[in-house]
Amino acid sequence: MLPFSRVAIIGLGLIGSSLARAVRLHMPTVRLVGYDGSAAVRARVDELDLLDDIADTPGAAVIDADLVVLCVPVGQMGAAIEEMRADLPKGAIVSDVGSVKASVAALAGLIPEGVHFIPAHPVAGTEKSGPDAGFAELFHQRWCILTPLPGTDETAIERLAEFWKRLDSKVETMDAQHHDLVLAVTSHLPHLIAYSIVGTASDLEGVTRSEVIKYSAGGFRDFTRIAASDPQMWRDVFLANKDAVLEILQRFTEDLTALQRAIRWGDGDTLFNLFTRTRDIRRTIIDAGQDTAAPDFGRDHR
Amino acid sequence: MLPFSRVAIIGLGLIGSSLARAVRLHMPTVRLVGYDGSAAVRARVDELDLLDDIADTPGAAVIDADLVVLCVPVGQMGAAIEEMRADLPKGAIVSDVGSVKASVAALAGLIPEGVHFIPAHPVAGTEKSGPDAGFAELFHQRWCILTPLPGTDETAIERLAEFWKRLDSKVETMDAQHHDLVLAVTSHLPHLIAYSIVGTASDLEGVTRSEVIKYSAGGFRDFTRIAASDPQMWRDVFLANKDAVLEILQRFTEDLTALQRAIRWGDGDTLFNLFTRTRDIRRTIIDAGQDTAAPDFGRDHR
Repeated sequence: MLPFSRVAIIGLGLIGSSLARAVRLHMPTVRLVGYDGSAAVRARVDELDLLDDIADTPGAAVIDADLVVLCVPVGQMGAAIEEMRADLPKGAIVSDVGSVKASVAALAGLIPEGVHFIPAHPVAGTEKSGPDAGFAELFHQRWCILTPLPGTDETAIERLAEFWKRLDSKVETMDAQHHDLVLAVTSHLPHLIAYSIVGTASDLEGVTRSEVIKYSAGGFRDFTRIAASDPQMWRDVFLANKDAVLEILQRFTEDLTALQRAIRWGDGDTLFNLFTRTRDIRRTIIDAGQDTAAPDFGRDHR
Repeated sequence: MLPFSRVAIIGLGLIGSSLARAVRLHMPTVRLVGYDGSAAVRARVDELDLLDDIADTPGAAVIDADLVVLCVPVGQMGAAIEEMRADLPKGAIVSDVGSVKASVAALAGLIPEGVHFIPAHPVAGTEKSGPDAGFAELFHQRWCILTPLPGTDETAIERLAEFWKRLDSKVETMDAQHHDLVLAVTSHLPHLIAYSIVGTASDLEGVTRSEVIKYSAGGFRDFTRIAASDPQMWRDVFLANKDAVLEILQRFTEDLTALQRAIRWGDGDTLFNLFTRTRDIRRTIIDAGQDTAAPDFGRDHR
């Protein structure tokens, strides 16, 4: 028995279109309806034949859904809910895929009585954007974190968890504040650092941009991948998760300053000890199935 | 006509063993001799059959070489030259693969009269170490930077350039100081940042190490790859290229502080504008053949 039979996806970019493909692959009998604010995206999704129906308004997309998944940037969640709230059927579950959860949970007051609201975050993505970039396997063996508000109906939570498990995701539940701190470490700070270093490197006197490009295989190119992620999505993440990002950034800056001092004073032992510790963490991530063991992420060297 | 007929490789880790394999692949008639300070590494290279001969001492390895390539950490280059200098034949070229060049160029006084000395740096590598990690294609379409000292014999420089081109590398020449500044940007700072952020994430109150591992696909795991690189090699790089690394690190810190301020004050435009600029740089790197266009570096999602 499937957890849902009529799923509406609002926002059809990388994540929304991957979700559509994943539902088609794993639950082919589910009726899939979608909406995107961009007419060009709606037309492209139609060409790609990812959905049973593409609605002209958010309200029309959700009118008979038993699950609605918001796949828009965090800063647009509120407006998306406003646009559809009058058409949400009683008993439906509204969820989302945003990378920040406390700011989404704060929108609970917009949800009509009798509709369940369970913020969620599948920890998966690539640096690409748009409906052509999506693929059905994006969520395979990745974690989806549910952050239900206190008092949420347990059966509704279980149905949403079952939905993600059907897509081959692993499911964890935590409160929204803790989610935002954990993701500040594992996702938001890495993106901020990557954006920052790519900005620094592209704007230096003494080293040309052409040199940065040519010799990027020395390490720099690794940072350019996540620094190519969707600008609007990431702007919204940093604005919505300000407190946790600033807290973790402060910790990072302290640690980097300690390394700077070790280099200035020629303290090789401090450097060597850290560099040995960090090696172990990669091994653990690979053992946990969260990255490839192939050198260079398995890039083709031929 | 081959640029060299008898090549000696001193140090048989990732780079040295890749060089041996690459010479075998592209110039199979070259006689290859090698040496490594570790008896275990020498035995393993023997099992892998990477060389025509494995010498018991550095002197025995170089005694009839026309090219000697030092593939040891930058901090060991001086000792390696001392150990072999009495046995270097007249007319031979001594080169290296170190990631820092001014500190290697400073060793020129140790090279006997009549022997050419041309520091070099193939900008290639992976996060793995040791002779089993090497492969012949490591240098394909990567840049090798030669940093000859003023007055170096032009024919010797041309022969070394031809050697790297035969291995399918692209060759560039610049002075050692400029090399060290360019690589501080494209390689040394990225490694320092990666080591630092992985250290920060593994040592936080409020977020467990298990959580960091589980949700690392949000971006963090990208940093763990280069933070798994050889600790001794990288300790030496930071100590040997102190001035350039500290200069570039200062620039990075300023830029990161500006981003921190933009987040604190809710300045979304500054964030959005940077994030849009950095996207272009990745496209340029891919167009230049220095990274893969496949999402997620081509990691397998199945």
